[in-house]
Amino acid sequence: MSKYPSVLMRAGEDRRLRQGHPWAFSNEILMEPATKALPPGSAVVLRAAGGDALGVATFNPHSLIAARLVCSNGDARLDRSLIEDRLATALQLRTRLYAGVPHYRLVHAEADGLPGLIVDRYGDVCVMQANTAGVDRLTDDILAALDAVVAPSAVLLKNDSPARKLEGLQLETRIVKGEVPGPIDLIENSARFVCDPAGGQKTGWFFDQRDNRAMVAAFAGGARVLDTYAYAGGFGVLAAVNGAAEVHLVDRSQPALDLARQSAELNGVAARCHVTRTEVFDELARLDKLRERFDIVICDPPAFVKSRKDLKPGAQGYRKMTRLAAPLVVKSGLLFVASCSHLVDPPLFAEQVKRGLHDAGREARVLRATGAGMDHPVHPSLPETAYLKGLLLALD
Amino acid sequence: MSKYPSVLMRAGEDRRLRQGHPWAFSNEILMEPATKALPPGSAVVLRAAGGDALGVATFNPHSLIAARLVCSNGDARLDRSLIEDRLATALQLRTRLYAGVPHYRLVHAEADGLPGLIVDRYGDVCVMQANTAGVDRLTDDILAALDAVVAPSAVLLKNDSPARKLEGLQLETRIVKGEVPGPIDLIENSARFVCDPAGGQKTGWFFDQRDNRAMVAAFAGGARVLDTYAYAGGFGVLAAVNGAAEVHLVDRSQPALDLARQSAELNGVAARCHVTRTEVFDELARLDKLRERFDIVICDPPAFVKSRKDLKPGAQGYRKMTRLAAPLVVKSGLLFVASCSHLVDPPLFAEQVKRGLHDAGREARVLRATGAGMDHPVHPSLPETAYLKGLLLALD
Repeated sequence: MSKYPSVLMRAGEDRRLRQGHPWAFSNEILMEPATKALPPGSAVVLRAAGGDALGVATFNPHSLIAARLVCSNGDARLDRSLIEDRLATALQLRTRLYAGVPHYRLVHAEADGLPGLIVDRYGDVCVMQANTAGVDRLTDDILAALDAVVAPSAVLLKNDSPARKLEGLQLETRIVKGEVPGPIDLIENSARFVCDPAGGQKTGWFFDQRDNRAMVAAFAGGARVLDTYAYAGGFGVLAAVNGAAEVHLVDRSQPALDLARQSAELNGVAARCHVTRTEVFDELARLDKLRERFDIVICDPPAFVKSRKDLKPGAQGYRKMTRLAAPLVVKSGLLFVASCSHLVDPPLFAEQVKRGLHDAGREARVLRATGAGMDHPVHPSLPETAYLKGLLLALD
Repeated sequence: MSKYPSVLMRAGEDRRLRQGHPWAFSNEILMEPATKALPPGSAVVLRAAGGDALGVATFNPHSLIAARLVCSNGDARLDRSLIEDRLATALQLRTRLYAGVPHYRLVHAEADGLPGLIVDRYGDVCVMQANTAGVDRLTDDILAALDAVVAPSAVLLKNDSPARKLEGLQLETRIVKGEVPGPIDLIENSARFVCDPAGGQKTGWFFDQRDNRAMVAAFAGGARVLDTYAYAGGFGVLAAVNGAAEVHLVDRSQPALDLARQSAELNGVAARCHVTRTEVFDELARLDKLRERFDIVICDPPAFVKSRKDLKPGAQGYRKMTRLAAPLVVKSGLLFVASCSHLVDPPLFAEQVKRGLHDAGREARVLRATGAGMDHPVHPSLPETAYLKGLLLALD
């Protein structure tokens, strides 16, 4: 019998969880005083109203997603051994996906059986984000399990995600093992890149666009390419490596563009890569005034919608982005647009892009609607966590 | 000024079309006697209630989708020259996509600017389907344009789609140019296949799964593979070519399996390919009883839902398929499931698959949610025409 405290669901609220869903919301939980008093992140046995164990969960009485099931066995222990098992399964998948090249998202939260945990791997360096109180409390066990399964030489805890605030957690970035020597190298799609986990956005690199970068780069031979929101050059530098005649990378961040430039140099394509530090919307309008045209235009912006109240104006940002970008694409050229706003679902994104194309007076066809790469799997019961949406369009 | 008759929309119904949507439904049209009397498939100028031209359309007073815009210019002519332009654009895209290997869907209806028209290309042989009265009436112009742009040695008119009945058209299959010598060769994903346009389903080959076949085959090295609804072997034979240790192809059609066997022989992998003619659900149950297990299981069935009244039982077919297939997958193995039912949208399909996995007691993660290949583009205003859905799952 488990020694974890029991948390009871309200009568009739267990159905979704019995069908495999891993979350219980706070209004579905019987919030008795003892339950409310549990320390945020406690391991608990989640039970139906009648007492049936639904499994072992992490619990935060102060979060909207109050319980996150880790294991459907109510007798399980949330310990290093269970975490090692989950990490080993996650590692096996990535090793298979990337033929042993160790640069990828190693753990993608619920879909890898570790709710709230993100681990990105850059060879010997792991960058970890604990986005729930439950995972935060398990940090020491996770680090020990990482040592056992991956044996990284360095681990950076990048606990700076706004999601932590919802869980009542502090934001912090610190090295918990070894040394992280500033910018580090990585290999993606057979090209070399430089990223900066400590200084950059998120964990330092957006592995989620790996396959989309390859998809776009496959068209790059001889092309004039505009890569906006270029960040550290994942799309643009790869396009140059794949034979683009000329690549223009635009971003508002000079440190990001410095990384992109270093990556271009590492791959011997710096002479064909030109960086411009400025605001993307302004630059798109300026380029159109100059009648500059490109065979391929890429728009991979940061999330325009960060909260529900931003939904309407933020979603319209994708329309405006498309309206400004489409005129720059030559006849029969390609436009790749993306959204990582998890609040914008695929139909809403597609609708905004369609309107932007129409505003620009450009006919188009969708060649592919894409998402994140396979190292960002999705839990079958949480389709809404597939936050990344990309559309590859061929314009008339 | 166009010589085409005018068809008026009802007041206020033109908004969607002004935003780029290419269809007007019959209840949005002012069905005056002269309009109702237009021969099905007539070229018309579609106008807003006030008289503004929305463009040139094909019109069928007896069809739910009454008008299909071909061109937003009301003065355009629906003639061989316009069709040649559309074909040339379509050809340019495919040539770029497949590096000149001429086996692909050349025309995918609305998204290629030719509503209702399907043309699949098998090298020198084109297979054409006219699925609307509008395109049916243009058959001679289309054939002439095909000659000018592609110059096929043979053209098969495969007018056997049920969609034609909704347009009041007869079903017929006939050779309209040259000779189609029974089964013909094609190249897909660097493997060789044999298909039978005249005798097989649809145009003889399902090019839409090309990229999904490559995606699955990338995991096939050393694997034991079960390919159900194998048809002519697009998934299974490619898996063998990519190094599968053993591939079992199951289909209810002996002619299809004969083609698969020929393809296996063409690629020198017949010794590793085993065909079984039987019903798939029965075979899945039988294999489980025998405790047979596979590293990869593929389920790419024909549409389970063919009409709205079939929606519920048909959608549940995907649940049952998943429930029967999941137990056959080894731990950490892969399951690829697909649906080509256009009435089953991606969330409904994903829900049924999730339930089937739960019925089978298997935890899983979605590695990728996919659709059709890029030679099956989607009109930005018709996202619902993206009929093909695939889910690649890694099972625990």
